[in-house]
This record gives sequence, C-alpha cells and structure tokens, in this order.
Amino acid sequence: MRIGELARRTGVPVPTIKYYTREGMLPAGERISPNQVQYAESHVRRLKVIRALIDVGGLSIAAAGEVLAEIDSPGRTVHRMLGTAQTAVSRTVAEPGTDERWADAEAEVAELVRRHGWAAKPENPGWQTMVQVVVAYRDLGQGELLGLLDRYAEAAGVLAAAELAVIARVPSTDGKVEGAVLGTVLGDAAMGALRRIAQEDVSRRVQERPHSA
Amino acid sequence: MRIGELARRTGVPVPTIKYYTREGMLPAGERISPNQVQYAESHVRRLKVIRALIDVGGLSIAAAGEVLAEIDSPGRTVHRMLGTAQTAVSRTVAEPGTDERWADAEAEVAELVRRHGWAAKPENPGWQTMVQVVVAYRDLGQGELLGLLDRYAEAAGVLAAAELAVIARVPSTDGKVEGAVLGTVLGDAAMGALRRIAQEDVSRRVQERPHSA
Repeated sequence: MRIGELARRTGVPVPTIKYYTREGMLPAGERISPNQVQYAESHVRRLKVIRALIDVGGLSIAAAGEVLAEIDSPGRTVHRMLGTAQTAVSRTVAEPGTDERWADAEAEVAELVRRHGWAAKPENPGWQTMVQVVVAYRDLGQGELLGLLDRYAEAAGVLAAAELAVIARVPSTDGKVEGAVLGTVLGDAAMGALRRIAQEDVSRRVQERPHSA
Repeated sequence: MRIGELARRTGVPVPTIKYYTREGMLPAGERISPNQVQYAESHVRRLKVIRALIDVGGLSIAAAGEVLAEIDSPGRTVHRMLGTAQTAVSRTVAEPGTDERWADAEAEVAELVRRHGWAAKPENPGWQTMVQVVVAYRDLGQGELLGLLDRYAEAAGVLAAAELAVIARVPSTDGKVEGAVLGTVLGDAAMGALRRIAQEDVSRRVQERPHSA
C-alpha cells in the first residue's frame, strides 16, 4: 500500500509516519519506483504498537524508541525485553539521599522483597522508587499507609505471574516479546485506570455513610 | 526559623522555596522585621508534601499545585480530594475515536465496571484510559492480555478498599485529606514500583527454566 493508505488505516498522519521512519522507529517502505514507496501489513502493525505505547501507555517518543530498538535487536529475549519495557515505564526518580533515613528505608524495602520471596536486585527500576516511597511515608508520619505496602506487593505478585503466564502461552518469540512490552506498558495503564475507578466506587460508598469529613 | 534553616531541614534549596511561595503552593512566612521572615513547622511539613508529590509521585509542578489548592480550599471533602488527586495522577489520554471499535470498547468497560459492582461514572479519569487500553489490545490481537483485566480490577478493588479504610481511621479531616492525596499519589508510585520488582522475579524464574525465547 502507499503511505496515504497506511495513514488512513492507522489514523497516523503522513508527516508523523515520516518522522517515525526518520527516527528509526518504523522501517522504511520498499521503493518500487523512483516516486513510489510501498508499505506492508507489518508497517500497519508497527504503527499500531507505536501509538499504543505513546497514546495509551504514556511513553515519551524517546522511551518508545528505546523499547522498539530492543524489540528489533537480534539478541532480544523475553527477560531482557521486560527489563527494557520496565525501565521505559518507570518514572525518573530523584537522587537517593545518603542519611540514616535512606539506609533504614533501603533495609525496609529489602525486607519487603525477601518477605515476598522475590528474586530481584536493587538495580531494578522499581527498587529506588520504593525506597523513596518509604522515606516519604515515614517523613510524613504516614505509617498506616506504609502498612499497605504488603497488600500492594501481594497484588503486584499475582498480576506479574498472570501476565507472564499469558506471555508464555504465545507460540512465537516475536509474539512473546511484543506481549511482554504491551503487557508491561498497557498493563500499567490499565492498573492505574482501574485504581481510579475502584477508588471512586469506595469513596462514594464512604461518602454515603454519615461522617464528619 | 529563617528560610536558610527551612532549606536545610527539608533539603529544598532557597530559590525553590521562594518559587513555591510565588506559585501559591507554600504559604508565605511571617515578616517579623523589615529584613527577616519567620517560617513555622507547618512550612516544613508542606514542603515535604510538595516534594513527595513531585519527586516520588511524579506529578508536574502544575498538577501538584492544583492538588495543594484543593487541600487548602475550605469546602474540601475526602471524596472531592480523592477526585482531584486521581485527576492529577492520570495520564493525559488521546482523544477518543468515534468508530465501532470505540463503541464496543466503551460497552466492554461498562460491563467490567458492572461485573465488579462499582458505582463509578464514565467521567472518571480512569474510564477513558480503560477504553483506550481495550481498543489497543483488540487492535493488536492481544485478546489474552485483555483477559487479565478482571485480575487487575480485582486487585484495584482490594487496594482501594484498604486505602480508604486507612484514611477513615485518621482522626482529623486535615489528616484524612492529606492521607487521601498521599495514598493516591504515592500509592500509585508504590504499585508501579512493586510491579517492576515482581515482574523481575517472575521473569527470572521463567528464564531459569529451559525454553526457546
């Protein structure tokens, strides 16, 4: 198909398609004559993946580009792909502190990880964020909220196992890799969105009961 | 205390403190002489809340400002506060489409919400994101991942109930409101971070088993 049809079928404007190609996120089409470039079904799919990562997953163009470069790399494995996708969806966190509060929080996170029997390392993009969350909760006297971390961890464990089980059933490596990316990025968007909806529900119920807030 | 001590105790540089004051996020100190302004413990706490929202929760300065304005408004309730905090942490999503796929996805999300017995409305900031996730999964042939949405919803429901229970136990309305904000914003950061750690764990286990990926 020509670039116009590719644009029509994916809803991505032609200049944006050209931009993704220049950035190496979308393979170039095949030049079949001096002024005609042909695109294939694989381009349609790749454009849909790009838009899902950016529009739904909330990745920056740079982060989406890194994920796609990893998808395209010959040495990719599901494990490495997950690592790349995880780093892409992780917030950039502030520099860690060095005082006692940070050392205590580090120990607390390590203990949480141990308690859930997780094989994970402090280099994990989520680890430092957890340390920062613990420092913030302690600092703000929100010890009760800190008590919820085991509930979050339990839920995270159940979801990770379910996601990986789905990915394991995908027959091809290409499919597994794409599933790992979409499961991580869109799964995060879904979890955040469902948290919003569930919070509205619970908040409505609490509000309906007479209380002093 | 003077601004220098406020900076030392919170780790927030003096120019940043002045910036937050100009932006209305931090109340001005009390001018006790022509060239001396006095700050109180309440300023220390407010600065810690600001930094937690921005550095740990990943809110933009604008979003943090909106949340703080709502905290400071006289008519605030826990329910309204939750709504503001939820909007602040929600990604800006692309415009919804108008074709059949979107109508189908809308119906699917409404059914999911009904299935979980949730009192929530399509205006909820998570609702449109969910519709977009469903469209993306369908579009990309990830029907199996779509099957995980009930698991996410279940987890989201458990966490929302646990968070609200913690907030309900806080004695003062001020404390409840702050708890609602921190529970939503830092709770999201914690959930995302723990998902990263749990995913690493599961992925390592899968990798250790011989497979073809």
